[in-house]
Amino acid sequence: MDPHTHIPTLDDIRNAAARIAPLAHVTPVLRSRSLDALAGCQLHFKCENLQRIGAFKFRGACNAVFSLDMASAARGVVTQSSGNHGAAIALACRLRDIPAHIVVPEDAPLAKVDAMRRHGAHLHRCAPGMTARDATTERVLHEVGGTLIHPFNDARVIAGQGTATLELLAQAPTLDVLITPVSGGGLLSGTAIAGQSLAPGIDVFGAEPEGAADAHDSLLAGERISGRHMHTICDGLRAELGPLTFAILRARVAGILLASDREALAAMRLIFERLKLVVEPSAALALAAVLRHKAQFAGRDVGIILSGGNLDLGKLSFAE
Amino acid sequence: MDPHTHIPTLDDIRNAAARIAPLAHVTPVLRSRSLDALAGCQLHFKCENLQRIGAFKFRGACNAVFSLDMASAARGVVTQSSGNHGAAIALACRLRDIPAHIVVPEDAPLAKVDAMRRHGAHLHRCAPGMTARDATTERVLHEVGGTLIHPFNDARVIAGQGTATLELLAQAPTLDVLITPVSGGGLLSGTAIAGQSLAPGIDVFGAEPEGAADAHDSLLAGERISGRHMHTICDGLRAELGPLTFAILRARVAGILLASDREALAAMRLIFERLKLVVEPSAALALAAVLRHKAQFAGRDVGIILSGGNLDLGKLSFAE
Repeated sequence: MDPHTHIPTLDDIRNAAARIAPLAHVTPVLRSRSLDALAGCQLHFKCENLQRIGAFKFRGACNAVFSLDMASAARGVVTQSSGNHGAAIALACRLRDIPAHIVVPEDAPLAKVDAMRRHGAHLHRCAPGMTARDATTERVLHEVGGTLIHPFNDARVIAGQGTATLELLAQAPTLDVLITPVSGGGLLSGTAIAGQSLAPGIDVFGAEPEGAADAHDSLLAGERISGRHMHTICDGLRAELGPLTFAILRARVAGILLASDREALAAMRLIFERLKLVVEPSAALALAAVLRHKAQFAGRDVGIILSGGNLDLGKLSFAE
Repeated sequence: MDPHTHIPTLDDIRNAAARIAPLAHVTPVLRSRSLDALAGCQLHFKCENLQRIGAFKFRGACNAVFSLDMASAARGVVTQSSGNHGAAIALACRLRDIPAHIVVPEDAPLAKVDAMRRHGAHLHRCAPGMTARDATTERVLHEVGGTLIHPFNDARVIAGQGTATLELLAQAPTLDVLITPVSGGGLLSGTAIAGQSLAPGIDVFGAEPEGAADAHDSLLAGERISGRHMHTICDGLRAELGPLTFAILRARVAGILLASDREALAAMRLIFERLKLVVEPSAALALAAVLRHKAQFAGRDVGIILSGGNLDLGKLSFAE
């Protein structure tokens, strides 16, 4: 199986769940009566901000790293990330006691870079933008050897991300809608495969910032758009779909809902205030999308994956 | 039984747990490897910031309100509160469909006053300070009738607060230390009674701000100190012990640990960053106390009750 072209199945996701079970948290699902009243539907928040490294990314990274055979693993792992995927690979490699090399753009958030470092990864800084990231990744791969684990265009990663939905549907069996933020599409792909396999009628939506709407536009156009400049405060949502995630989402997703940065921040404040949870702007975007498109969800049981909670607290302000 | 003099028993706490079970949340216990490493012990955080109204206070208020006989309940409830107890009484009364009258000082945090209002309480504003609060409470009691439910010097309230520890010891049976913030002493009293009844060797500590150290000084002096000016950012910890809570704490508590406002804010940031939880400064004080008195807890299993998560987000800043 080539992990860059294989479309994961429910069995792949179940195997991933078994593989990561000794290492990952089963995260809680929280609810809020006041947010339900505001949204006009029943919201079920899957708290992946409480996952290890503070984001769902640990699921996919852990599954990919622990899928490697002994000989490949010994040569270590290379990846590129401005944030949570890098921290997740760093921790997964530390738990398997193998080296992690992470290509990190200069504009990555401090809190996320600190987390990579804390877990002992080798960092390779590069200029922002996909071109520099890809070139530096090629160079590091050439220099250190090791296996590339792509942040989202990888069947092992997608299967790992899908495990959050296995748990969520066991915790909240009445869901008829699932919404996750979409960036490279790994979480949304895994969510769609797990959700539709277990609950065939369920509707799966992505939520994307207006300033990084490549998934929205790609699905409308029927072809993958790439090379755009992304402009959003949601630092976890600036990647673009890969060939594998595009193919999966095209076949499965009911739609991509847009929301503005201002709406993401307002939703983030609501989550702090009503759920007492620290989430990053990217994680709040799914709630922002529900609040903007309320009519679509009226009275339904909506599962939202709160993707992560890593942000530079020194810069946080809700002052009006 | 006079609720102002009766010392609650384990049976009272078990009855309270049964009474509030249909209405209160069983809150999760969270852990963090990085906080354990920092503290040099195993920390178990009981998330009462995720309780209804965002604080443990709902337990005691709910038990007290639902303990009233039908005739008393119909006349409504009067209390005084600058914050979470008021919101808790407001919600409990709404759930029982009886009127709540709350005496609120002018300097109470906006977020907490909003919560009282949202749950339909009648607010009676007064000047800050215990003298004005007591006088206004007397006047309101005289005007509207109804039953006074004191925020902490009340056996029904103390028994309700103790239910958090019943849950915590079931969730984390290895604990040998319990720490809660102390203000009027209701939470700490309920925690001590429940903890020592179920785990006889357990040590129970209070954590108190340096600028509001009346419980610390009262226990040292062997007599209840009152009438002091309290000066702390921990807005939930400005009350002083009552006769009932003083008697309970004097017999049961291993010590009151002090921490500064600066330490409380640093601990609050750690909880945001590592646990991804929104807590108010008062709730962070117990962690601050553990970090300041590390040697005392080295290697032990420490249960900390995160008392609440209500704060004015518009004023929140971690900027250095």
